[in-house]
Amino acid sequence: MGTETERKFRVTGDGWRAHADKGRHIRQAYLAIDDERQVRVRIVDGASATLTIKTGGAALSRGEFEYDIPAGDAEALIACCIGQPIEKTRYRVPAGGGLTWEIDRFEDRRDGLVIAEIELDGETADFDRPDWLGEEITGDPAFYNASLARG
Amino acid sequence: MGTETERKFRVTGDGWRAHADKGRHIRQAYLAIDDERQVRVRIVDGASATLTIKTGGAALSRGEFEYDIPAGDAEALIACCIGQPIEKTRYRVPAGGGLTWEIDRFEDRRDGLVIAEIELDGETADFDRPDWLGEEITGDPAFYNASLARG
Repeated sequence: MGTETERKFRVTGDGWRAHADKGRHIRQAYLAIDDERQVRVRIVDGASATLTIKTGGAALSRGEFEYDIPAGDAEALIACCIGQPIEKTRYRVPAGGGLTWEIDRFEDRRDGLVIAEIELDGETADFDRPDWLGEEITGDPAFYNASLARG
Repeated sequence: MGTETERKFRVTGDGWRAHADKGRHIRQAYLAIDDERQVRVRIVDGASATLTIKTGGAALSRGEFEYDIPAGDAEALIACCIGQPIEKTRYRVPAGGGLTWEIDRFEDRRDGLVIAEIELDGETADFDRPDWLGEEITGDPAFYNASLARG
């Protein structure tokens, strides 16, 4: 059984767009951000909303709990969140070998920032590197969504 | 339209027990505690669980959002909460005039602490003061549940 690894890169240029789906708009913010626990409110396409709790930081006991909530509640909660909400559009781009790139194009204060993520079976798993792939930022706290919301 | 006011007192002696219901056991802890927002996980009688978000601190824009969650999730979340969970039994005691005392009898580290709360129509509303009513602690942060969990 492999260990799931996420690798994260900056994106340079628009080459990925030709193969992307139409994307989903994401508006999210945080009610809690610390090393041990994060509480995130997310609204997708202005309609469906979730409350997600991630626990355990980088520890083995990492957990994730997600609940659907009414979009109206989510809007009211986002107004009371830490820092500023993040606005982004998330696209999916086939990565070959059954893998998928998730590409987040940020708006508002982070306009222009584009980040690509891929989920792999373990840290050494191979994957194709398209020419729009920039610098690797896996594990760089500056690019955590929670950091972007706080900043 | 009255403004709802909660007043809170310490309880001295057991005089209230004669009129109390059988009580509900509450186990709760916090994923977030700050001036602007609290995220609370609560399990009642070991069975039903809720996630409650209170926003706005003492401000006018105070909000409360509550969601049912599976009790198993709640147990896992409580294990990752800030400080130590609070264990208490909450009893209801008729207060006369259609009002009700909610009496929290704390267990574990706070064993012996008993607090009574009453919800009134405004700050000047009258109510009967039973002889087991002790010192008023309305607005004393030391007796907030969040403070008791943190300590």
